Amino acid sequence: MYRIELSSDEVPKKWYNINADLPVELPAPKNSEGKDQISTLPDIFVEECLNQEFSTERYITIPKEVRELYQRIGRPTPLYRAKGLEEKLNTPAKIYYKREDTSPTGSHKLNSAIAQAYYAKKQGVERVTTETGAGQWGTALSLASSLMGIDCTVYMVRISYEQKPFRKGVMQLYNSTLYPSPSENTEVGKSFLKEDPNTPGSLGMAISEAVEDALSDDKVRYTLGSVLNHVILHQTVIGQEIQTQLEVAEEEPDTMIACVGGGSNFGGSLFPFLKEKIKGNTDTEFIAVEPSACPTLTQGEYSYDFGDNMGFTPLLKMYTLGHNFVAPSVHAGGLRYHGMNTQISLLTHEGYINPVTVHQEDIFRAGQLFANCEGVIPAPETCHAIKATIDQALKCKETDEEKTIVVNFSGHGLMDLKGYETFIAGELENAK
Amino acid sequence: MYRIELSSDEVPKKWYNINADLPVELPAPKNSEGKDQISTLPDIFVEECLNQEFSTERYITIPKEVRELYQRIGRPTPLYRAKGLEEKLNTPAKIYYKREDTSPTGSHKLNSAIAQAYYAKKQGVERVTTETGAGQWGTALSLASSLMGIDCTVYMVRISYEQKPFRKGVMQLYNSTLYPSPSENTEVGKSFLKEDPNTPGSLGMAISEAVEDALSDDKVRYTLGSVLNHVILHQTVIGQEIQTQLEVAEEEPDTMIACVGGGSNFGGSLFPFLKEKIKGNTDTEFIAVEPSACPTLTQGEYSYDFGDNMGFTPLLKMYTLGHNFVAPSVHAGGLRYHGMNTQISLLTHEGYINPVTVHQEDIFRAGQLFANCEGVIPAPETCHAIKATIDQALKCKETDEEKTIVVNFSGHGLMDLKGYETFIAGELENAK
Repeated sequence: MYRIELSSDEVPKKWYNINADLPVELPAPKNSEGKDQISTLPDIFVEECLNQEFSTERYITIPKEVRELYQRIGRPTPLYRAKGLEEKLNTPAKIYYKREDTSPTGSHKLNSAIAQAYYAKKQGVERVTTETGAGQWGTALSLASSLMGIDCTVYMVRISYEQKPFRKGVMQLYNSTLYPSPSENTEVGKSFLKEDPNTPGSLGMAISEAVEDALSDDKVRYTLGSVLNHVILHQTVIGQEIQTQLEVAEEEPDTMIACVGGGSNFGGSLFPFLKEKIKGNTDTEFIAVEPSACPTLTQGEYSYDFGDNMGFTPLLKMYTLGHNFVAPSVHAGGLRYHGMNTQISLLTHEGYINPVTVHQEDIFRAGQLFANCEGVIPAPETCHAIKATIDQALKCKETDEEKTIVVNFSGHGLMDLKGYETFIAGELENAK
Repeated sequence: MYRIELSSDEVPKKWYNINADLPVELPAPKNSEGKDQISTLPDIFVEECLNQEFSTERYITIPKEVRELYQRIGRPTPLYRAKGLEEKLNTPAKIYYKREDTSPTGSHKLNSAIAQAYYAKKQGVERVTTETGAGQWGTALSLASSLMGIDCTVYMVRISYEQKPFRKGVMQLYNSTLYPSPSENTEVGKSFLKEDPNTPGSLGMAISEAVEDALSDDKVRYTLGSVLNHVILHQTVIGQEIQTQLEVAEEEPDTMIACVGGGSNFGGSLFPFLKEKIKGNTDTEFIAVEPSACPTLTQGEYSYDFGDNMGFTPLLKMYTLGHNFVAPSVHAGGLRYHGMNTQISLLTHEGYINPVTVHQEDIFRAGQLFANCEGVIPAPETCHAIKATIDQALKCKETDEEKTIVVNFSGHGLMDLKGYETFIAGELENAK
């Protein structure tokens, strides 16, 4: 069997909320000294998303309209057997990969974008704002808003805006309003520009602008594409689908792998399986793969820190490299986050998740090998998971173990080919 | 039902050959005066492909290895119901689209590339050559060669080579050797360069180089991505899958639509249905959509002409704008061919196919509308079919007819976003 396909009817009916099953209590977010950050959240975020953020219900029903849109964008996504890669590696391991790249925007991000746009619309919100760096989240939110019939404003880090004309083009095609950040559109943007008119911008600056914009009008809300629990919640359709698909394939996973930046890809695909590990029902190994240039889980500290670079957010207990940490500009822009989702942080701290780091040059080599065996070209972020998968499969070859390895293929690399080009030309700066 | 999915087992076991069912005899190719073009074909083409070119067997068995690769690259591809588009147009028509963009290289081209690379390898060929303009065919052949373990040399029209760095990057990622054409790698290339060192190149020049390269060594053969019968034969997996999917959906198509350049997309998706029309079993309407900038079927002459610009090929009886015709450089590079597959030409001449033309500005408007309703961004070529589909659906709204319209969605536009960008900026030169 090369592909395990589910029918549209098999899109999950509920999202899975890991809050219901955490092995120890999750440390609550707290205000930083002298600031009332938590009470302002309802003016920033969509109400239902905020409810979900702190919910401890195990399952949350997916609204009919959201489930229909999941079906229309191609969910359930297929699970593939990587026969070509297995043969190339000559490994006894069986490798399966979940194809989140088959989404119209090319990554898993749309799963939460649709849900957030839906709840925004339902609440009467007329426009959503967000920031985007690499562009995956901005693209997904743009399409979701268009499908839902609301407006969308994206603050795109200026250097990305200039370097990624096609990403920009796609968001405009989906009718979004785009600003290179910092922009003249917000007070905070103007102040950044006054300080340095030639600033390349940063995710932190773009967040500040998107939040200010959301606060400017009661019909506007801010949305985020990773890190928070409600975002990962929406992504758990991935993991639940994998569960059904592995049942069809009559497989038990020995090792499950996903790359990790803020956590939405890792949590979305693996939380439904981690549930069983927390309950002691399985000894599946869970590997979180991060770039050596931004080793949050492996070298960060488990402590309270700000979610953003500027100290606007409440303090969160998480693995962090410090909110002032600026990762080298590796091509996997989606993995350059200083912090980590609090639930993933807790589960790593408690020993349920094994984090590993991989180097930039190795991930592109792994990505090229994968593309030549399987056809699909992985996004730089996804290459991290592929590299770890290859390492595991080769280990199985050494030990002659017929393990079942499952990896979440979070996105394709067709919009980010610059990294491959640099790699093939032998000009990659191997950050760290 | 938003999506009709078939399992891997349902990949067709045979290709369908329209030669067996043509309503009148196909005029044979002939040599041009004083040239022995037809007898040199075996030195140029892979033997089995040449056999298939002139075969009149109705069904040709797909080799096991090819069928397995079809499964591995995701065949059968899904058939989607365009609910979002239907609602937006407020039409009583039902619109289905076949997702050939889900191939790893983003278009239908891989279906024939895999078959041609397979037969080449089987014959002992160690390297295949080809030319590419827009890049879809070159990309597909690069991956197919890599999967099959043979080498691949692509002559890419120089101006495309320079303007499409990412296409180039993908072919290199798939391990192909790439030359901007004209190149110093062939005698004919050198002569073109001597004539004009700054020439932007052309498809005709690139074909000449690829053919010369193939003739230079008995272990090398030339391959082509459209126009010829064996190429369309390989593409008939598309149409046969649509037949099964429409049975599942319990639908009879009233109107079937595909864009047409050389004919592989149109013939591959519609020949299995045209068979029934030739037999008088159906009155389905078949619409071939071409750019107004290159109106081969609508304004060309049905007569003997060369398949290439240089007069190297035998003469073929087909619709042609004249082999010296140079189409304006519209963004749909895949539709800029002066001639047409001979079988499609014959069926158009006999009245089985209705050709229509659409304008460049209209096709991008249609593509944007589609992307905002359905998510997927159509390639410029595919936009032609989408524009005709929207026209048909709006006609149904006027006449209040609940027709079933089926369109082949030949490829996504993620590698060709320049056209959309120009369109959105209002800077499109509306060629013709």
